[in-house]
Amino acid sequence: MFRHTDYLQFDVAPEKPDPVYARKLQELLGGAYGEMTVTMQYLFQGWNCRMDGKYKDLIMDIATEEIGHVEMIATMVARLLEGAPATESTQAAAADPVVAAVLGGMDPQQAIISGGGPVLADSNGVPWNGRYIVASGNLLADFYANVTAEAQGRVQTARLYNMTDDPGVKAMLKFNLARDTYHQNTWLSAIEELKADGLEGTIAPNALFDEEYTEHAETLWHLSDGTQADQGRWASGTAPDGAHTNRFLANPQPLGDKASAPPPDPKLYATYDGSRGDPTPASIGTEKGFLGKVKDALEPDK
Amino acid sequence: MFRHTDYLQFDVAPEKPDPVYARKLQELLGGAYGEMTVTMQYLFQGWNCRMDGKYKDLIMDIATEEIGHVEMIATMVARLLEGAPATESTQAAAADPVVAAVLGGMDPQQAIISGGGPVLADSNGVPWNGRYIVASGNLLADFYANVTAEAQGRVQTARLYNMTDDPGVKAMLKFNLARDTYHQNTWLSAIEELKADGLEGTIAPNALFDEEYTEHAETLWHLSDGTQADQGRWASGTAPDGAHTNRFLANPQPLGDKASAPPPDPKLYATYDGSRGDPTPASIGTEKGFLGKVKDALEPDK
Amino acid sequence: MFRHTDYLQFDVAPEKPDPVYARKLQELLGGAYGEMTVTMQYLFQGWNCRMDGKYKDLIMDIATEEIGHVEMIATMVARLLEGAPATESTQAAAADPVVAAVLGGMDPQQAIISGGGPVLADSNGVPWNGRYIVASGNLLADFYANVTAEAQGRVQTARLYNMTDDPGVKAMLKFNLARDTYHQNTWLSAIEELKADGLEGTIAPNALFDEEYTEHAETLWHLSDGTQADQGRWASGTAPDGAHTNRFLANPQPLGDKASAPPPDPKLYATYDGSRGDPTPASIGTEKGFLGKVKDALEPDK
Amino acid sequence: MFRHTDYLQFDVAPEKPDPVYARKLQELLGGAYGEMTVTMQYLFQGWNCRMDGKYKDLIMDIATEEIGHVEMIATMVARLLEGAPATESTQAAAADPVVAAVLGGMDPQQAIISGGGPVLADSNGVPWNGRYIVASGNLLADFYANVTAEAQGRVQTARLYNMTDDPGVKAMLKFNLARDTYHQNTWLSAIEELKADGLEGTIAPNALFDEEYTEHAETLWHLSDGTQADQGRWASGTAPDGAHTNRFLANPQPLGDKASAPPPDPKLYATYDGSRGDPTPASIGTEKGFLGKVKDALEPDK
Amino acid sequence: MFRHTDYLQFDVAPEKPDPVYARKLQELLGGAYGEMTVTMQYLFQGWNCRMDGKYKDLIMDIATEEIGHVEMIATMVARLLEGAPATESTQAAAADPVVAAVLGGMDPQQAIISGGGPVLADSNGVPWNGRYIVASGNLLADFYANVTAEAQGRVQTARLYNMTDDPGVKAMLKFNLARDTYHQNTWLSAIEELKADGLEGTIAPNALFDEEYTEHAETLWHLSDGTQADQGRWASGTAPDGAHTNRFLANPQPLGDKASAPPPDPKLYATYDGSRGDPTPASIGTEKGFLGKVKDALEPDK
Amino acid sequence: MFRHTDYLQFDVAPEKPDPVYARKLQELLGGAYGEMTVTMQYLFQGWNCRMDGKYKDLIMDIATEEIGHVEMIATMVARLLEGAPATESTQAAAADPVVAAVLGGMDPQQAIISGGGPVLADSNGVPWNGRYIVASGNLLADFYANVTAEAQGRVQTARLYNMTDDPGVKAMLKFNLARDTYHQNTWLSAIEELKADGLEGTIAPNALFDEEYTEHAETLWHLSDGTQADQGRWASGTAPDGAHTNRFLANPQPLGDKASAPPPDPKLYATYDGSRGDPTPASIGTEKGFLGKVKDALEPDK
Repeated sequence: MFRHTDYLQFDVAPEKPDPVYARKLQELLGGAYGEMTVTMQYLFQGWNCRMDGKYKDLIMDIATEEIGHVEMIATMVARLLEGAPATESTQAAAADPVVAAVLGGMDPQQAIISGGGPVLADSNGVPWNGRYIVASGNLLADFYANVTAEAQGRVQTARLYNMTDDPGVKAMLKFNLARDTYHQNTWLSAIEELKADGLEGTIAPNALFDEEYTEHAETLWHLSDGTQADQGRWASGTAPDGAHTNRFLANPQPLGDKASAPPPDPKLYATYDGSRGDPTPASIGTEKGFLGKVKDALEPDK
Repeated sequence: MFRHTDYLQFDVAPEKPDPVYARKLQELLGGAYGEMTVTMQYLFQGWNCRMDGKYKDLIMDIATEEIGHVEMIATMVARLLEGAPATESTQAAAADPVVAAVLGGMDPQQAIISGGGPVLADSNGVPWNGRYIVASGNLLADFYANVTAEAQGRVQTARLYNMTDDPGVKAMLKFNLARDTYHQNTWLSAIEELKADGLEGTIAPNALFDEEYTEHAETLWHLSDGTQADQGRWASGTAPDGAHTNRFLANPQPLGDKASAPPPDPKLYATYDGSRGDPTPASIGTEKGFLGKVKDALEPDK
Repeated sequence: MFRHTDYLQFDVAPEKPDPVYARKLQELLGGAYGEMTVTMQYLFQGWNCRMDGKYKDLIMDIATEEIGHVEMIATMVARLLEGAPATESTQAAAADPVVAAVLGGMDPQQAIISGGGPVLADSNGVPWNGRYIVASGNLLADFYANVTAEAQGRVQTARLYNMTDDPGVKAMLKFNLARDTYHQNTWLSAIEELKADGLEGTIAPNALFDEEYTEHAETLWHLSDGTQADQGRWASGTAPDGAHTNRFLANPQPLGDKASAPPPDPKLYATYDGSRGDPTPASIGTEKGFLGKVKDALEPDK
Repeated sequence: MFRHTDYLQFDVAPEKPDPVYARKLQELLGGAYGEMTVTMQYLFQGWNCRMDGKYKDLIMDIATEEIGHVEMIATMVARLLEGAPATESTQAAAADPVVAAVLGGMDPQQAIISGGGPVLADSNGVPWNGRYIVASGNLLADFYANVTAEAQGRVQTARLYNMTDDPGVKAMLKFNLARDTYHQNTWLSAIEELKADGLEGTIAPNALFDEEYTEHAETLWHLSDGTQADQGRWASGTAPDGAHTNRFLANPQPLGDKASAPPPDPKLYATYDGSRGDPTPASIGTEKGFLGKVKDALEPDK
Repeated sequence: MFRHTDYLQFDVAPEKPDPVYARKLQELLGGAYGEMTVTMQYLFQGWNCRMDGKYKDLIMDIATEEIGHVEMIATMVARLLEGAPATESTQAAAADPVVAAVLGGMDPQQAIISGGGPVLADSNGVPWNGRYIVASGNLLADFYANVTAEAQGRVQTARLYNMTDDPGVKAMLKFNLARDTYHQNTWLSAIEELKADGLEGTIAPNALFDEEYTEHAETLWHLSDGTQADQGRWASGTAPDGAHTNRFLANPQPLGDKASAPPPDPKLYATYDGSRGDPTPASIGTEKGFLGKVKDALEPDK
Repeated sequence: MFRHTDYLQFDVAPEKPDPVYARKLQELLGGAYGEMTVTMQYLFQGWNCRMDGKYKDLIMDIATEEIGHVEMIATMVARLLEGAPATESTQAAAADPVVAAVLGGMDPQQAIISGGGPVLADSNGVPWNGRYIVASGNLLADFYANVTAEAQGRVQTARLYNMTDDPGVKAMLKFNLARDTYHQNTWLSAIEELKADGLEGTIAPNALFDEEYTEHAETLWHLSDGTQADQGRWASGTAPDGAHTNRFLANPQPLGDKASAPPPDPKLYATYDGSRGDPTPASIGTEKGFLGKVKDALEPDK
């Protein structure tokens, strides 16, 4: 359960409105790596966590913080839109290059849909969606996803930092940049902690190593014609997991047969000349449970 | 430019068809972390790379390999669908529990749309889309995204490995698991290489550290009531970037003013009682270029 | 800013797992009228509210509650998935009709993507998206949207209530049904309050009545051949807004000219025989600002 | 079955083209609350209506009218695009601020995809989709959705009315505003009619009141720190449904246990330390039908 | 403007309900090539048509017919869902394999969202969207799109025809198949008519042939290793447009330079070692209009 | 399996950057008929092809070529963005109309997300998705889809050709136009080849002609009021398939009963007055397999 205070986590005080920037800032709100994504990603990771204790507590602390970041950006967008020339006609806008520049760069839906506020979408107006989040239940895999989210988020924030002169906006972004720095450090720390606790190794998931083909777990297949791909540490030496030796496969050959699709069901009208015969029936039904016994009892000759 | 051979990168030889599994396998084809995502992610990273040499060459080698993985999964789906009871009527299916179970678990679009082949969608039929890929131009941030993609991909592949008994399918997945292992090692190696080359540090982007608020780059805000969030290395000691000291903020307070939206433009019909006055115009237009000079010359009194 | 307790708002205690129902319940989590929608709808309405006081406070109270409902449903889905036969092979499932029935009705992504937890999607696996929410800044319009969301939500919850026998699941839904009842009453109350406060009338937005064509604001256009459309109170008597008289237009005629598209720009290659002449240029640029003065000064003969 | 006349329902006669406005108007065509939505929403409600007579006839009359509104907006967009500078190069546009303002504000797809006509998308180019419509079969819930659609639609139309000076465009919008006014009155009337007919009450669906927890159907949970949420009629007095008494819960406490996810299936590789034991199998299969009898007969000791 | 009769264009009379088939039939309603697509595609083509007369009249006739097909499929879905076991619990369903098979194959949203009716989505529940339609204004290109839509539609209808035994459903599909046959013939006829009228040739758009590189308009680039691609009429002889000679390019070589991205803007933080120097400014602004004159007058030395 | 060379298929050498055009060009990259669509469409058609030989070889040759076109457009976008004023603040942009025009027309995500490179989206920023592709397995239907894709693609390319003055960009587009011309000819040739090989006729699929209602396969239903729809060859004479005679149905009447939905399941809460009685149970379960025998044996009196 959650509680809320109307006070913002940090200052959201633009010196003056800037409706063009209000559109760009949508990326940090509803973009693939905006605040909405980290909020829902961490909440779902926390709820999907299978152990009580420090990992779950860490995730829920940061998840709860991120909802407050959504609030900050949403508020900033509204404040940047104050007094925007959204209701100027084209004729008026075209008469004044400054107004025209602003109108051309605005998100029309911030006016038409929201009445001067944010939408839950990115800087091109594409709505945020639930496929942006990662919550696999595997903490190593998810913590890498979290490092990624904070890294992409900080890259985007840093770019947006350079797109404004407004000291108030910059002040808020200095806070966001700092949080993104801390959170990158946090998730990297959490990966180390997982290893220290013996819960995960370097590769996610840390299982099935006995099953996978080891010889294919060590080679870079050289399939493009760049000449320097063998010059990094991915091409020789011990791999980061400590268990493999990196190698370079200079002229890899296909190991499988020719790609082909099987004979089609004629009732599905795939074009077919019959050259491959009829399709094999799907061979399921070698039942091993009680139903097979029933079937055997009733239809012994089948 | 690309060239193609019909021979598959690895064996794609199911022992027998299994149309239910063919649906599940769609996740590795058109899911958020399926082969399509890594293919396009690496291609766009390679094309967006700003330096010739080993990094770009590495990316293009793996990107080219991944198109072949899309081909493998697409072929496997078609082969698993051979002889599927897709055209059985409901009445016939309901009369035979085995057929019914198969029909209930199939993806209807594999029959209706593709005529017994794969669709470019995930295991729930949602189409793959271009927002799944990451190609920011910042190699550190993108290589973390690549580790993530390979980690999530291996987790999903490992889960799918446990959902089949077919030795032919398992053989292919053993290859995929191995490649995911190698590629996780690869991108982790590439991150080390970036650092060794002095191109990037630990935090992406490795810039603006002088600008961001350092005091907010070190603290875990404790906003949930779990009691153990202060027990990991994210809460004390030196951070992974070597430049910060992790700390725990036990009772964080909001630092900003009350969240509020500014007075609205009356022509946008937001409900408003006038208590906050009229909106401030968007203050842009303190032109610094030649247009300002024109304006000054023509309208000196404005 | 938000704070969180790990304790759930209400009991989430299924008597036993039910992975088929776990799929259906996704509709209340990530469907168009699920808990995620009301959470984000109310948060954005609160942040977009232009007045301090009771309306905003009401909205924020309920918004904060709804995040807790997302938490409840997400937890219920995970608990219903405990011990699910997600990793059974098709062959094993087909051998046991009960297992087959369960597998056929499960959401495969709850296993493959989430490892036995919820996804942020609806009961068909389509991800939740930001276009589901309504936050126009016009409180009357938005409160009707809120009544709608709670009504559709309660209808769906009631249907789901009838799809389970589990007393623990039913107990949670009894709580959800009650909250949906209260929230429907709440938003209807808030509409009354708006009117009592003189902030809004019956029609949103309560403006431009002098501009719109009154004669077209009173008539039902009879365009289908059902014979009883004139028998409801929408066809006669005073309208709910108290300002119009409902009427029935039995044989409406088109009032406009023939639908047609204008002559095309030849560079856009629309098929065209030239019969309508050349296109009229877009007539914008009758500048009224300083730029027009410049243009006049420099090109007086244009 | 439908019939069509080429004559438009109302005048669609812009005084002059305005390609920037043509983009904004897309919101009324393919936006979440544009004409496409009400068309399909009412059609599906009519087809999903379970009773012949006045309600169905009303819905089909309005649904049929709305297709004509889609036609009007589509035609207006094409006419506003006549002579648009869509094929001007950037260099030419940049040389003329008026042209630049127009080009910057245009929807590029109206030129590239449609050749100077409308697209089936909103003002940011996001395509219309079928999740925008509501047709639950429950008329009370759906009529509230209809009020919402007409209210949001009129709010957006009113905003767009203020964004143009063109008397021809304004004339068409005066018609649209009037229809939105009438349709809001219509659906509010229809809600009254439902009650008068004894078909529905105030809360949708009007069922399960005996099942839901009454004590949770009356209270506002105070979870944010605004101080005035208890000052509206939602916090005291009789609720609109006449059956409940509104109350204010000043300090609500969580009523459930701690949120947690159950022990995971090890084959799904969720990170887990084993502290919660093994997962409970999904307890379905206490068959009550004939299959249970078979099982008992064949496997009496299980 | 449109008018509607409640009578269906053709019989929609299933012999008995079949809820599993009701899900599959969604593909013809809301799939990429379902009735919704052709309805909106033809309506938008008609509204976007730049000439009065036979082409526009043809398009509008068929467009109007197709709305009636949407109505037919929507009605069929509802009728197939009559008495569906949608509200059976998992336990009850699992006890009866027939019920379980039906439940496993149903679309849960047809029950939860629509209350036993259709949704505007495809057979996997993905909503229909406006990008499915084609209306470019170029009639040749669009008529090929129409042939495609009718061909894919007939293929899917034929597949669905084989998935049911119900004589009532088959009767309706016999009508749909016939209409798809006629409409394929229609659009092929219309392509011939365009040529006979001298409005279009074989290639869309029939323009810029003098501009394009003729030598690249005649060759098949052999980039895969199949050996028979040179054995069809696409590899030799006169092309269908009568203006080109097909040829086979057995060993095509890349004609361009190495793919590379230019030096990045340092403020965007792309990883860069500086080896390619600084980026070239975007060279626009060689103004040719009056603004350039102003600039020259005011800043003669720039 | 694929191999790659860094050399581009053709020159991608803009004379100078043009960031506004870089946005428009996204349509050819990630639009519904951009290079991404034909790449994936042809790849999936090739993998879904049921016959070895010339058709599959042709498809794979062109598919492989198209990946190279994606590469070309992606590279062109990056080169057009060199030195773009993406990091200019609104204030600076508003001061210079040229910069303002550029900024207003740019895609903000090309800077914020990609750091000066392409996104996998169209010219309005909507991501490419997997539903754009067609690969039904029926070659006649798919080859028409391919003609369509190349025709729409060439129309869009031709429009874009007219939107730039840059000789380098135009040079690349001259190549693309030529390939689109050849590929239109190719797929039209392939349709002829199919007929010559006796694999398909004119109508897809070339089956079920004996089943469909012939009388409905020949008539144009006149449902709009245009007067010239009977004046094309679609209304009389022999149809293109040589098997039907086109006719005009001047006053078509509905042939079905009244559209209506059946009585609802009361547990789904559709509004209902009971006038149509209770719903008929879904009549499936007349088992014909061994399960029916079991049921009969165990419950002989049912």
